Amino acid sequence: MQFANRVKKVQSSAIRDLLRYGTDPSVISFGGGYPDPQLFPSDKLRAVYETLLCKHAHRALQYTVSDGIPELRAQIAQRMRDDGTSCTADDVLVLHGAQQGLDLVAKMMLEPDDTVVVEDPTFLGATIAFNVFEPRYATVRMDGEGMDMEHLEAVLRVNPSVKLIYTMPDFQNPTGVTMSLARRHRLIELANQFDVLILEDSPYRSLRFEGSHLPTLKSLDTEGRVVFLGSFSKIMAPGLRLGWAVASGDVLGKLARLKLAADTQCSTVNMMAASLFLDTYPIEEHIATVCAAYSRKRGLMFQALDSTFPSSVHYTRAEGGLFTWLTFPDGFDATRFMLDEALPKAKVAYVPGEPFFATTPHINHARFNFSALPEVTITSGMTRLGELLSAYLPHVTTSIEQIA
Amino acid sequence: MQFANRVKKVQSSAIRDLLRYGTDPSVISFGGGYPDPQLFPSDKLRAVYETLLCKHAHRALQYTVSDGIPELRAQIAQRMRDDGTSCTADDVLVLHGAQQGLDLVAKMMLEPDDTVVVEDPTFLGATIAFNVFEPRYATVRMDGEGMDMEHLEAVLRVNPSVKLIYTMPDFQNPTGVTMSLARRHRLIELANQFDVLILEDSPYRSLRFEGSHLPTLKSLDTEGRVVFLGSFSKIMAPGLRLGWAVASGDVLGKLARLKLAADTQCSTVNMMAASLFLDTYPIEEHIATVCAAYSRKRGLMFQALDSTFPSSVHYTRAEGGLFTWLTFPDGFDATRFMLDEALPKAKVAYVPGEPFFATTPHINHARFNFSALPEVTITSGMTRLGELLSAYLPHVTTSIEQIA
Repeated sequence: MQFANRVKKVQSSAIRDLLRYGTDPSVISFGGGYPDPQLFPSDKLRAVYETLLCKHAHRALQYTVSDGIPELRAQIAQRMRDDGTSCTADDVLVLHGAQQGLDLVAKMMLEPDDTVVVEDPTFLGATIAFNVFEPRYATVRMDGEGMDMEHLEAVLRVNPSVKLIYTMPDFQNPTGVTMSLARRHRLIELANQFDVLILEDSPYRSLRFEGSHLPTLKSLDTEGRVVFLGSFSKIMAPGLRLGWAVASGDVLGKLARLKLAADTQCSTVNMMAASLFLDTYPIEEHIATVCAAYSRKRGLMFQALDSTFPSSVHYTRAEGGLFTWLTFPDGFDATRFMLDEALPKAKVAYVPGEPFFATTPHINHARFNFSALPEVTITSGMTRLGELLSAYLPHVTTSIEQIA
Repeated sequence: MQFANRVKKVQSSAIRDLLRYGTDPSVISFGGGYPDPQLFPSDKLRAVYETLLCKHAHRALQYTVSDGIPELRAQIAQRMRDDGTSCTADDVLVLHGAQQGLDLVAKMMLEPDDTVVVEDPTFLGATIAFNVFEPRYATVRMDGEGMDMEHLEAVLRVNPSVKLIYTMPDFQNPTGVTMSLARRHRLIELANQFDVLILEDSPYRSLRFEGSHLPTLKSLDTEGRVVFLGSFSKIMAPGLRLGWAVASGDVLGKLARLKLAADTQCSTVNMMAASLFLDTYPIEEHIATVCAAYSRKRGLMFQALDSTFPSSVHYTRAEGGLFTWLTFPDGFDATRFMLDEALPKAKVAYVPGEPFFATTPHINHARFNFSALPEVTITSGMTRLGELLSAYLPHVTTSIEQIA
């Protein structure tokens, strides 16, 4: 049948294949990117839904405007302004998670053979969204300060087909790295110079445990060429599937039309629940509780890495977010090791780094999540894995560094 | 800025512009496609959310599998089987409304310059979704039995670039017309012969007030080339934003990967709410209540059309759904009449028919919704409009017919 061959290339579900290992209850999986369900504001959300469906059911269960309910757009704009990004409710589009922003921006920008610049490594969900539109990728080196701006400039200079620079500047998935202030300024300059759009994907931004608050790229935007994506998944709950875009008038209008075309609107009841939650409860207090808990968990993971892992394994000291990124010695195959050693012998899973590289995969990395599991499980799982690795790896002495 | 010109063509928000007239509280608007909020099962849904967030909050608020929670997929499959369509949970993908199915199928199938066959007129939300992918359109005549199959065959014969036939066979939006059984069989034959996919969009299917139950196209599908789209918006509540696709293995797998890329998953809490609702309450009883109410409203609308409208205005006797479709005499401009006469003089709005024609617009039609407004408002609004039209239109005597 003709139509069966007409589907555009879609990266096979690497995330789903990998997360499968997390479903065996005897396995400790550091693979997911889930928030800790113990920290969900369940009672508050229960009260919010109760109020809505008691007092405002006719509105909550009905269709509403495509861009998102006005009060939630205003609240998001207020939070963005409190965070230093100048915007109004008119600049906000409510989305079905930040992931939908990746799809809509790609839809807005990409024709086949256009080039997208991504960090090396980059968020797998982004390449999955972009791949539908068959772009080329140009990857830019990362170090402990994020995307290397000299390398980016060189990439832009030789690639006139670049339409879009995709970056996760805060506690990047998968590496946990945050882009420095100087590089943020330089990134804006380069985007202006080479006339490209910046897609700033920042679902973890509120989850900073330590270090300096840095401005969003959107707040540094001088020509309306940054689209910012935020999410309620990590500060409220993923089950509501709510995120947002902030963009300048013309770009936002185009994204809004694509949102209408894609799925009409987000869930009215969930948008109203998020809005009533923000109205009723101090979200910053809730975020502080979440950050304190994740910071403790991160500390336990780092402790186990320091004390039980061979010194030839390096990791990133993420200042927030959900992840750290491990670099094993050259030639170490993190996928094979997981399948042949870690799963059968230590009953531990993680996400091997390969799928996060958009062009040339490197096999000696892995992403570890520290938010989802209970503290004691983090320590026992990491210790089991560290001991296995210590027995497995040659004893190379190297200091712990930021990613190379 | 380069990127500002890079957005693909998106039909401007005709629906939104038109629905704007519905926001003036002194205007009686037959323009929307909303279900009656008085009929929402609000108390039951309130109980369902209360139970979920009390007993299952950790799951309801967390991420879940991309295809949809297994119990809801199984319940949808069961309802489809009860409706005569053979399928299992594995053939079901939960969507963010049926609208998302339009986007994902278009994404799966369409390259620029591919042709989509649509009914003439067709659902505006579908062309808005398809336009993002820049197809050509071939329109096929409609009569009281739906798409004209001889015309369709002629269209397929001269258009080798047709990839997709889009149809709303049950109580079509905008005309209210249902495709006859003979044409359903013929449509499957033609799709097989010309090797194209059928997109069967049936959000109103359960809302039949009278006449014979007809099989879905999917149930007649012999080669796995029908994608069926259903929706909970009209049988439960639109605010949950839940619909589904039923498709054969290979096609469903492709749609599932595109769903993952587009927005990861539907709202967990809403999927669990829909599932618990289906488990706890007899949905068919609720649907029967809704059908009885809409049938009464439709009756009042038809009564006003028969008694107060000039006989030169024809309308479709929809056997279910939400809409009837009016045909005014040749040369009558339904948009101008609404703006210059109906709104200022009768304070009545509707949706002029023009945007529902994908290729050549006809100006002498209008879509009227009978589900949303209270009974007394339907009668007074239609009477006001009928009297205005009677004074405005030349007295042409023609019998009431199905659409020409």
